[in-house]
Amino acid sequence: MRVHVALTPADFAGLLLDGRAALVVDVLRATTTVVAACAAGCARIVPVSDRDSALTTAARYPAGEVLLAGERGGRTIVGFHLGNSPLEYVAERVAGRTVVFTTTNGTDAMLHAGRATVAATAALVNAGAAARWAIDQERDLTVLCAGERRAFSLEDAVCAGIVVERILAEHGSVDLTDAALAALRLGEHYRDRLERLALESEWGRNLARQGRGADLEACLRLAASPIVPVFEAGVIVPGPRSPRTAGAAR
Amino acid sequence: MRVHVALTPADFAGLLLDGRAALVVDVLRATTTVVAACAAGCARIVPVSDRDSALTTAARYPAGEVLLAGERGGRTIVGFHLGNSPLEYVAERVAGRTVVFTTTNGTDAMLHAGRATVAATAALVNAGAAARWAIDQERDLTVLCAGERRAFSLEDAVCAGIVVERILAEHGSVDLTDAALAALRLGEHYRDRLERLALESEWGRNLARQGRGADLEACLRLAASPIVPVFEAGVIVPGPRSPRTAGAAR
Repeated sequence: MRVHVALTPADFAGLLLDGRAALVVDVLRATTTVVAACAAGCARIVPVSDRDSALTTAARYPAGEVLLAGERGGRTIVGFHLGNSPLEYVAERVAGRTVVFTTTNGTDAMLHAGRATVAATAALVNAGAAARWAIDQERDLTVLCAGERRAFSLEDAVCAGIVVERILAEHGSVDLTDAALAALRLGEHYRDRLERLALESEWGRNLARQGRGADLEACLRLAASPIVPVFEAGVIVPGPRSPRTAGAAR
Repeated sequence: MRVHVALTPADFAGLLLDGRAALVVDVLRATTTVVAACAAGCARIVPVSDRDSALTTAARYPAGEVLLAGERGGRTIVGFHLGNSPLEYVAERVAGRTVVFTTTNGTDAMLHAGRATVAATAALVNAGAAARWAIDQERDLTVLCAGERRAFSLEDAVCAGIVVERILAEHGSVDLTDAALAALRLGEHYRDRLERLALESEWGRNLARQGRGADLEACLRLAASPIVPVFEAGVIVPGPRSPRTAGAAR
């Protein structure tokens, strides 16, 4: 199993994803929010590139069953039902509904990841389950770090590294590219001090300035969510909870 | 002072370098070789993109005073005087001469770095002097990691991180981007085990397979070369050895 990490969005264009598994990571906050939406029982999440695409896509679903969701610059888009805080995605709001979702960085990375043969979303809250999903695919893996405005984000690389570390712990034969090895080292460094990412990462500090401390707490923790949202024809659905995945949750 | 590290060549296109200082890093082996060439007393190094440009450029200099140098895929270009091993660049061969230089990754990064207001080359062998040069510029700094075939190279990020670490140690006020902070962490991890990069980095293993163990030893060590080769109108010249830089050499 060969594992690569695309550390910055600038790397996405050159990725060969055909035949591979992909995991997309946007810890602050899009992929954490996707896990939360699935945990709250949404029917599906449709990632789209911008506000206009969101409106066009939402029009294809019955009005009562669809929610417009997303942010630009960290703030909810005017007129949308939901922003990009995982704390907003509770069962009362999203259960059974379709979430049409656009964020500054996360959805672009999701659209790229969707080109892979199989793809899913990872965050710190489901890192263990995402690693097991990746192993179960029996394919080479690319982890796409969403970053921030086409640049590198520390917390995404750390999450990618923690996923890589868990794959190494469970899979006998893994070949890492230099970028995957660098992510692994960053994961090792921050694994037991994730709260520091709120102070040290640029986007963490930005969210703190916006009064998003509760979001940072929700995103910057290793949880044991068994949920691995997966791509099906460009749409993200709550993944099947395999007995193995559920049993391994802590 | 704000410090950014372009971790992969894919990031180069989006860099705003006007008004900034730039350091270009290609540890294995181009910038280590540039330091060696300057230490051996070359007159200048002219980075060019490819073999044909090298031939055209060399024709502008008197035949006895110019050397064609470079590699593709780690191997000396057929018909060239020198390859890309720092061990080849001894005074008997290069003193007083112009070296027209093209390598797979390093010279492209050099041509990008040359767009900055001031630019110089860094490797592990001159990391301390390069850090002091950067501080002396009193500008924001971008470190460009040459990488390998447009992808991330571990050893370049580690070198960038060691330069960042030395800047932090000597400069009171430094603001790091996430990418610079990630490089710093990688530098901290590998600083006292640089020899492991020969085993862990992809390009290190590749050079080892080519029987380039002596080159790996020459490149993967923190030396205290006082030399900081600097760009002047697109050409690299041995930098002035300031009393401060010379005095700080160990």
